[in-house]
Amino acid sequence: MTTLQINEVAPRDGFQSEERFIPTEPKIALIDALTTTGIARIEATSFVSPKAIPNLRDAAEVVSAIQRREGVDVTVLVPNLKGAERALACGVDEINLVMSASNAHGRANLRMTPEESLTQFAAIIQAVRGSGVFINASLSTAFGCPFEGQVPEARVLTLIEQQLALGVEGVTLCDTTGVANPAQVEALCRQVLERFPDVPFTLHFHNTRGMGLANALAAWQAGITRFDASLGGLGGCPFAPGATGNVCTEDLVHMFEQMGVATGVNLPALLDISATLPELIGHETPGQVVKAGSADRCYALP
Amino acid sequence: MTTLQINEVAPRDGFQSEERFIPTEPKIALIDALTTTGIARIEATSFVSPKAIPNLRDAAEVVSAIQRREGVDVTVLVPNLKGAERALACGVDEINLVMSASNAHGRANLRMTPEESLTQFAAIIQAVRGSGVFINASLSTAFGCPFEGQVPEARVLTLIEQQLALGVEGVTLCDTTGVANPAQVEALCRQVLERFPDVPFTLHFHNTRGMGLANALAAWQAGITRFDASLGGLGGCPFAPGATGNVCTEDLVHMFEQMGVATGVNLPALLDISATLPELIGHETPGQVVKAGSADRCYALP
Repeated sequence: MTTLQINEVAPRDGFQSEERFIPTEPKIALIDALTTTGIARIEATSFVSPKAIPNLRDAAEVVSAIQRREGVDVTVLVPNLKGAERALACGVDEINLVMSASNAHGRANLRMTPEESLTQFAAIIQAVRGSGVFINASLSTAFGCPFEGQVPEARVLTLIEQQLALGVEGVTLCDTTGVANPAQVEALCRQVLERFPDVPFTLHFHNTRGMGLANALAAWQAGITRFDASLGGLGGCPFAPGATGNVCTEDLVHMFEQMGVATGVNLPALLDISATLPELIGHETPGQVVKAGSADRCYALP
Repeated sequence: MTTLQINEVAPRDGFQSEERFIPTEPKIALIDALTTTGIARIEATSFVSPKAIPNLRDAAEVVSAIQRREGVDVTVLVPNLKGAERALACGVDEINLVMSASNAHGRANLRMTPEESLTQFAAIIQAVRGSGVFINASLSTAFGCPFEGQVPEARVLTLIEQQLALGVEGVTLCDTTGVANPAQVEALCRQVLERFPDVPFTLHFHNTRGMGLANALAAWQAGITRFDASLGGLGGCPFAPGATGNVCTEDLVHMFEQMGVATGVNLPALLDISATLPELIGHETPGQVVKAGSADRCYALP
């Protein structure tokens, strides 16, 4: 029985941070390969202004061209109303709105305070409602802000409540700059699951300080079953200093599968795709299982 | 209250794997700096044959020259009787015997089966007994062998029992090639703590597949409070393919301190020392907090 749902974010959170533009055709081929591996969802791109993130200027082309597969939802990041309209025009299963839990990161990343983001959420949701497209919201810096430091739990809970009141259907708690620790993760996850038992929560970790998998473990222990992860551990945040790679999909899948927790993902297939990344992006990736092999791997005696 | 005990193994497990010899004087200076940070124990070197591991040919000189500090035990790896005699002559607080849980790794790494290792343990313990030196034993491949694959829990428990019967006073369970997963770690740790409640157990993880901190978390959740770790994440195993870095001391300390679990270690001091490693060893280290800074670090707004 599959107990986890993996949302692959490399095409969005990974590629947006790359120095060079990843050409559209191999990008589409990569997404098409990824959606055969058993992941539950793929965040294919962001309908952001090409001026803000030139790497994702091919968003419409990508979403229109990728193959749709039964059981694999296509989601896209949507930073504003215009982005939502572009996304709807291409046909997606889900849109992922984004806002920061902290004022300073909101202003640096989105040029909006959390309150301004919520006002914009209302406008977007009004435009999307009735389309059948699922509305998820990602809450950045939910575990801490690189400018302001601590983000109180109570603030996160209030923001989630406000999102849900507007019509948000699912929430992703993002540790945008890899500051969360397992005790904090477990505590916040238990809180949100208790307070909002009907809402699908996804956890989004970065491995900036090496705690990515430990945090995923803590979230799972608290009852979380949905995770964002990025092939090869690609990713970062262009407007958050020190925000290195997302938690690596294949390393996350490997850990849980080794623990006997079914992810639904074909790990060897995922590793094969990850092994193609360095050629595509022009540099090594931080993923570790793709280099070391699965823990089951046996070597010949020397 | 300090709840964890950190055993720093970089001077032994880290430096033995480096391509080049780390000169004796800076090595001594590094150890002297490390023992001021609040670590509980330092594994200063290995009294191994200089032919087998030329990097540690200065073992006697290092142990004789380092400063001894109240509250910081000096331990050394001892692969055989001759090594034990050399260690005793230099004056150490602890010797750390080593054997493999698997036949294949034992033969590859030590040229001994586990049974032959136990016979040798008996001879060493006879020579050491009465000296006041604490006798620890490290059990390699306790969570899996790179040649044989799975190592049954029952086998590990039996080997521990045999070690203790010979006079071993403390046991380190080593995930030599980074194959352990958190579920396995928690299960084995609970077993050994229940079965041998008076024995101090230490856990030794490698981060080969990214699970180092997740495994440390799982061990701690099971009741383990003593961890081996290596500054900068240096380390490996010369006779175990794919065995990359030990779990990184500063990343481990950072995670637990962020969780509110006291390690007794001064993290800023440790980070300062870690930052000197690249010049000393001639390459970058895998440690992440030394690059990203503590999770508490706040940046100026852009």
